[in-house]
Amino acid sequence: MKIYETEGFPNPLRVRIALAEKGATDKVVFVPVDVMGGEHRTSDFRAKNPDATVPVLELDDGTCIAQCNAITEYLDGVFDGPSLTGASPKERAVIAMMNIRAESGLMNAVGAYFHHATQGLGPDLETWQCPDWGNKQKEVAQSTMAYLNEVLAENEFLAGDRFTVADITAYAGLVFAEFAKVDIPGHLDHLLAWRARVAARPSITG
Amino acid sequence: MKIYETEGFPNPLRVRIALAEKGATDKVVFVPVDVMGGEHRTSDFRAKNPDATVPVLELDDGTCIAQCNAITEYLDGVFDGPSLTGASPKERAVIAMMNIRAESGLMNAVGAYFHHATQGLGPDLETWQCPDWGNKQKEVAQSTMAYLNEVLAENEFLAGDRFTVADITAYAGLVFAEFAKVDIPGHLDHLLAWRARVAARPSITG
Repeated sequence: MKIYETEGFPNPLRVRIALAEKGATDKVVFVPVDVMGGEHRTSDFRAKNPDATVPVLELDDGTCIAQCNAITEYLDGVFDGPSLTGASPKERAVIAMMNIRAESGLMNAVGAYFHHATQGLGPDLETWQCPDWGNKQKEVAQSTMAYLNEVLAENEFLAGDRFTVADITAYAGLVFAEFAKVDIPGHLDHLLAWRARVAARPSITG
Repeated sequence: MKIYETEGFPNPLRVRIALAEKGATDKVVFVPVDVMGGEHRTSDFRAKNPDATVPVLELDDGTCIAQCNAITEYLDGVFDGPSLTGASPKERAVIAMMNIRAESGLMNAVGAYFHHATQGLGPDLETWQCPDWGNKQKEVAQSTMAYLNEVLAENEFLAGDRFTVADITAYAGLVFAEFAKVDIPGHLDHLLAWRARVAARPSITG
């Protein structure tokens, strides 16, 4: 299988971490996409993913899977190793809920700030910006950080005592936040300690 | 188990359809939440769901599951009946991808238009609005309708030949669109035919 992606970008990072956690990084071929050159908006790329986003997983039968959560769902299902999305219905639901909170409240909120309230990827790619929306989403990202800090005061990881896709999404969200200069508000000690624990995992240190 | 919700609202509708498809509507107790009176923003409700949204599923052990996709994941796992989220990793991934497209591109886009570019739920609840963002999201919703129409030219349902959560999300999105006066652009015949097929299902006609 192939993964079309742009190394160093926050959503591709989520899939790379998931693959490494499953011990399956060498089972896929990474195909670079020149997002800065607009390749993701070409008709060839849109035929694979009409959302015009990276990453995209292409299976050997030609099926294309876009959207990180759909990709990690697939990878978690086909590769061995510890489950990232959960086993029992309750566990799966709690992980899904926390993953959605990390995605919409942190990753996507930071993305909205970056693309709408900063220069983002530059004028050729940021063809419509809404600074008011972007700045509001920065506030959302920071209040989500505070919420995650509360969760991590009670739990080692975001969905309980095991590392899951929710942690991957939140970690990549914090990497994006640092890049976009969305500061972590002071005294979120549990969040900072968790970030250090996650950053030390072999799936991230390589 | 209990479901805290507001009857007639679009996201609660998704969970009600899922329950009916599983033949499990009588297995839950519905607890009404007075969203128009701001009950979802009280500290009691936020203790169940810090997102301050309906619906919320409360399990008998007190665990609260918010976010429709997490709730339907749980309901699909514990109740018999046809699978709404898929069985094989590939099927699950395709359904997840189409569900995300229906949610972010249609349901959430209509919601952004409604809450930001119209009076929404009124001045007491719509305390921060961004009309430019809302109007842009109306365009997103309509272009998603056109995309779904293309998908439905090739498939009976959004993720293939079976009814899934992706269809539930898109159907509820169109119900919301009609309420918010986001018109379906002309000539989307496949989308309209699919909507009629879905509307005729026993899970929706009651």
